[in-house]
Amino acid sequence: MSSTYGNKVKISIFGQSHSEAIGVTIDGLPAGFAIDMAELQRFMNRRAPGQSRYTTPRKEADRPEFLSGLVGNVTCGAPLAAIIRNTNTRSGDYDNIRDIPRPGHADFTAHVKYNGYEDVSGGGHFSGRLTAPLCVAGGIIKQILAADGITVEASVAEIGGNAEEPFAAVESAAARGDSVGGIISCTITGLPPGIGDPMFDGLENRIAQAVFGIPAVKGIEFGRGFEAAGLCGSENNDEFYYDGGQVKTRTNNHGGILGGISSGMPVTFRVAVKPTPSISIEQRSISYAKGEDAVLKVKGRHDPCIVPRAVPCVEAAAAIAVYDLMK
Amino acid sequence: MSSTYGNKVKISIFGQSHSEAIGVTIDGLPAGFAIDMAELQRFMNRRAPGQSRYTTPRKEADRPEFLSGLVGNVTCGAPLAAIIRNTNTRSGDYDNIRDIPRPGHADFTAHVKYNGYEDVSGGGHFSGRLTAPLCVAGGIIKQILAADGITVEASVAEIGGNAEEPFAAVESAAARGDSVGGIISCTITGLPPGIGDPMFDGLENRIAQAVFGIPAVKGIEFGRGFEAAGLCGSENNDEFYYDGGQVKTRTNNHGGILGGISSGMPVTFRVAVKPTPSISIEQRSISYAKGEDAVLKVKGRHDPCIVPRAVPCVEAAAAIAVYDLMK
Amino acid sequence: MSSTYGNKVKISIFGQSHSEAIGVTIDGLPAGFAIDMAELQRFMNRRAPGQSRYTTPRKEADRPEFLSGLVGNVTCGAPLAAIIRNTNTRSGDYDNIRDIPRPGHADFTAHVKYNGYEDVSGGGHFSGRLTAPLCVAGGIIKQILAADGITVEASVAEIGGNAEEPFAAVESAAARGDSVGGIISCTITGLPPGIGDPMFDGLENRIAQAVFGIPAVKGIEFGRGFEAAGLCGSENNDEFYYDGGQVKTRTNNHGGILGGISSGMPVTFRVAVKPTPSISIEQRSISYAKGEDAVLKVKGRHDPCIVPRAVPCVEAAAAIAVYDLMK
Amino acid sequence: MSSTYGNKVKISIFGQSHSEAIGVTIDGLPAGFAIDMAELQRFMNRRAPGQSRYTTPRKEADRPEFLSGLVGNVTCGAPLAAIIRNTNTRSGDYDNIRDIPRPGHADFTAHVKYNGYEDVSGGGHFSGRLTAPLCVAGGIIKQILAADGITVEASVAEIGGNAEEPFAAVESAAARGDSVGGIISCTITGLPPGIGDPMFDGLENRIAQAVFGIPAVKGIEFGRGFEAAGLCGSENNDEFYYDGGQVKTRTNNHGGILGGISSGMPVTFRVAVKPTPSISIEQRSISYAKGEDAVLKVKGRHDPCIVPRAVPCVEAAAAIAVYDLMK
Repeated sequence: MSSTYGNKVKISIFGQSHSEAIGVTIDGLPAGFAIDMAELQRFMNRRAPGQSRYTTPRKEADRPEFLSGLVGNVTCGAPLAAIIRNTNTRSGDYDNIRDIPRPGHADFTAHVKYNGYEDVSGGGHFSGRLTAPLCVAGGIIKQILAADGITVEASVAEIGGNAEEPFAAVESAAARGDSVGGIISCTITGLPPGIGDPMFDGLENRIAQAVFGIPAVKGIEFGRGFEAAGLCGSENNDEFYYDGGQVKTRTNNHGGILGGISSGMPVTFRVAVKPTPSISIEQRSISYAKGEDAVLKVKGRHDPCIVPRAVPCVEAAAAIAVYDLMK
Repeated sequence: MSSTYGNKVKISIFGQSHSEAIGVTIDGLPAGFAIDMAELQRFMNRRAPGQSRYTTPRKEADRPEFLSGLVGNVTCGAPLAAIIRNTNTRSGDYDNIRDIPRPGHADFTAHVKYNGYEDVSGGGHFSGRLTAPLCVAGGIIKQILAADGITVEASVAEIGGNAEEPFAAVESAAARGDSVGGIISCTITGLPPGIGDPMFDGLENRIAQAVFGIPAVKGIEFGRGFEAAGLCGSENNDEFYYDGGQVKTRTNNHGGILGGISSGMPVTFRVAVKPTPSISIEQRSISYAKGEDAVLKVKGRHDPCIVPRAVPCVEAAAAIAVYDLMK
Repeated sequence: MSSTYGNKVKISIFGQSHSEAIGVTIDGLPAGFAIDMAELQRFMNRRAPGQSRYTTPRKEADRPEFLSGLVGNVTCGAPLAAIIRNTNTRSGDYDNIRDIPRPGHADFTAHVKYNGYEDVSGGGHFSGRLTAPLCVAGGIIKQILAADGITVEASVAEIGGNAEEPFAAVESAAARGDSVGGIISCTITGLPPGIGDPMFDGLENRIAQAVFGIPAVKGIEFGRGFEAAGLCGSENNDEFYYDGGQVKTRTNNHGGILGGISSGMPVTFRVAVKPTPSISIEQRSISYAKGEDAVLKVKGRHDPCIVPRAVPCVEAAAAIAVYDLMK
Repeated sequence: MSSTYGNKVKISIFGQSHSEAIGVTIDGLPAGFAIDMAELQRFMNRRAPGQSRYTTPRKEADRPEFLSGLVGNVTCGAPLAAIIRNTNTRSGDYDNIRDIPRPGHADFTAHVKYNGYEDVSGGGHFSGRLTAPLCVAGGIIKQILAADGITVEASVAEIGGNAEEPFAAVESAAARGDSVGGIISCTITGLPPGIGDPMFDGLENRIAQAVFGIPAVKGIEFGRGFEAAGLCGSENNDEFYYDGGQVKTRTNNHGGILGGISSGMPVTFRVAVKPTPSISIEQRSISYAKGEDAVLKVKGRHDPCIVPRAVPCVEAAAAIAVYDLMK
């Protein structure tokens, strides 16, 4: 169990960075929905590298190939399966991580968990590459939600602590062979009130469970979040009022969620993304083979900041979580 | 679906603030574990009101009555069920919230979700009172973990933004009939490396899903969390070294979790708790019956700060999440 | 995991034959449904002993006490919990089964599974007594289905191989201190076409999973079942026709299910119930303590045929399975 | 939800008869298991057509292509995905079933469930072809079980009611353009006592849930099954004895399962398979388009008896169910 999400819509993600293919199965989509393939590709392109000079220039096509679940481009009720072929498989570039785990990566924890049988190549199943099939699933579900007037939109809030010129920190880090983290904010609009279940299946619980599936995410907060912890009730409570026949709140500190259930106000949350652990700077680590401390220099070119590419992934994860609760 | 948690150990919580009883069933405990009932009661007492002058003085016994799953105090493999009788049932104190939803509470969202059939009394199933059965389950599981050398310990990190004298803010808020939020930090020690599954069933995903089950929680961050978003990779990466035969990291910015899997370092996380929405100060809201805006004054005495009482609840939720992944 | 059923409606059953209480939690009932308590009690009475001279005369009240999930007798959306107190707890009657497992019972398998910590008293969690909370859940759900025009009705088809005078075999077995098994047939009417999911969540899969939860059930067949295995396709296929605007089949060998999905024809199935393993006749077994073969004489009065009492249990299990797929 | 099975090992099956590919993902396999690919192919071949003159001569390769989860042929802990390309896609042979549902098939029920958007080609997701990926998953898991000394073996017990010369009935049916059903018996040996959970997750419940996932299965019975319903307790109870240090039963009417839990005796069960619904004989049905009764002649060559090809599928389903309970 691990790479499967959802109670009513089951998403199962598979693949390793350098396996034959990566992909996803989605069991529980409604029959009769026409997927806009061009729109889906535009969504996929948002997480592709090479979108800006700050992201890794390695070329990836990331065009999903649909194996089942469709007649033409229309869902038929059967589980949908889509794969993306890995063109760069079993490269020798990662030979040294087999012995020396990279700081900040899952190399060491996977090594312990899988008794040395883990696929180390490119980070294996823990690679950020696995967010591509997440985006296939999320991109389709975003379209289904949009047909009901529900939008899920995320954007970069700050990078390296800088919210005004977020990309400034990227250039400076890249120049040093270093990397930098950031914060993504996300807003869901059009969600009717009454979505979400109490206790463990509330919107917060389930969005958090999905969003932490994106590598490098280390925190999530809804509405005012951590800031609310410093407020008084009289400041943080959002008063209700009628706007026509509709109940709204005058402020939205609660981020559109009360008791795990949507209030009809926009759902808002923020996600903390740690700096990419792959850096060119030499780091200290260990050698399993020698049983002693070692020094590691990660080869290849690395993305100095994955925050922009993580933005559509946050949308995808949130869309999946919300849709699973709506069905 | 909602108040059930766990893949391998199924926790099912039931009850409303003023129903006959609240309780929990736990399906999947190991047979042959002797529960230390005195220790469990001490744990329960930590969330009881009246522990300090800052918490609500309403007297509650909160002594779990065990209905099944035990022979004496030893688990027998069958599902364990425990209930706590509510002594204060169906009070008339809450008549006005049937019509006027309290800001910051789940009154309105429950009203929409359950079409007006929700139990409004004392907040119904959304009451903080439901954390009592959570603590019964968590308290037992903490003992099982402790027998394996794993401890789960939380404490108040700050209240009202004040980390040095956290309780100062409570007195001032209480005097104004207001309330105040805070931050709880939690540390899990003794967890062996290799616990947790990739993607959606990692430690972060599953602890977050459980902890957001505590009312008033609005954010969670692991390790350096949101702070890491402002760091460079070279600052945030934790370098490995051998300490005797054991692999450790020189720093613990990753909070003991890499790729969703425990590294063997202490698991650390922080939880944002919003200020108690119940305040004595008059607030604006709406009247369903009149279909117009209304003014609400919440009656009764209220806890000006639930943060201290939420501390054992965080431990309970985290213990349940970790144990479910360990089985 | 074990005593929990359902994807959309979660049923969690707890208790042992002689624990303080047995009970059930139901998470996922619709809000606003008024339970007819008298009707529920009549349903419960159908599985109670003492209904006929053929069933065990031990007196049990089996009146569920509702702890949560209701306001009055109306569901409020929160998980419903109901318990039945055991009046006959921790009796000494079962001391010998602690050492000598009863043939045909779960004594031995529970002993291995729970390392000797199982509750042996009255069969513990494996007792037929646990079908009482199953009937509480099933009885409520039968009412919800009935409100939609769906009925679930089972009856005794044969006992001891005798379908014409099924009760004749019971008297004869009872006189010898022996017991006898039988077959129950069940029909679900009013189920609209299109209910059930393909492959592993079809009506057959899910009804079977629920019905095998009743102790002593050893077989299930849908429609013509095992008989169909001896037929030709031209005999077994059910031809479609229009009856007014409605599609029907001229015969119902398929038992109302094609591809796991309801066809709109009555769902029909039959359940094989083995003879009650408790008999007064001396049987050979083993002694754990002595590590050698032993002889067992089961004490007390026993039900020579549980088939009539299992009839409402089959209805309950089927109702739960169908409702979970309909939500 | 539908084509996903398992609590600890998640099997997700996808594909339609004529989609680009069919396949399976398996999440939860142990890392470090070397799959014997030749053995797996031999297992796959057992369900392939053309094995005997009684099965459909249509040529299918059914060689799984592994996309992920392996390094070489060794599992790496990441989800395994395997696909089989469909060479015969989107054929026009099935145009008439779009309008006229075939008796005994899921055409009509799928039509209702998916509002006319179902993939009718070759039966879509309801085709027996989907048992190929089931056999990929089951074939791998059979190898894992075999490494622990557990074997799962099924065989044809009878066809068309004939147990002595089961294949006689096939020839006669084939000559008439008709088909015939049969019974498969299955035995699991080497399963240690104590496997399976009480109530809803017992071996019977979970094997039944898996086996009914094979199209055309209409009944299942464990041990003496329906026959036991005609016996007395003194005949049906299996007495325990010590065979060396091991506890055995003198007979095995219980089919190796008591209270849902394995007893250490061989697990035995029988499965009823209805006659293939595809026959060449003209049948009455309906036309959706005309809204009136119609006559259907199913084109193409059809398998007069799928029972032999269903044998490995029963093994696969049982292996998956048992393994999920063992983990």
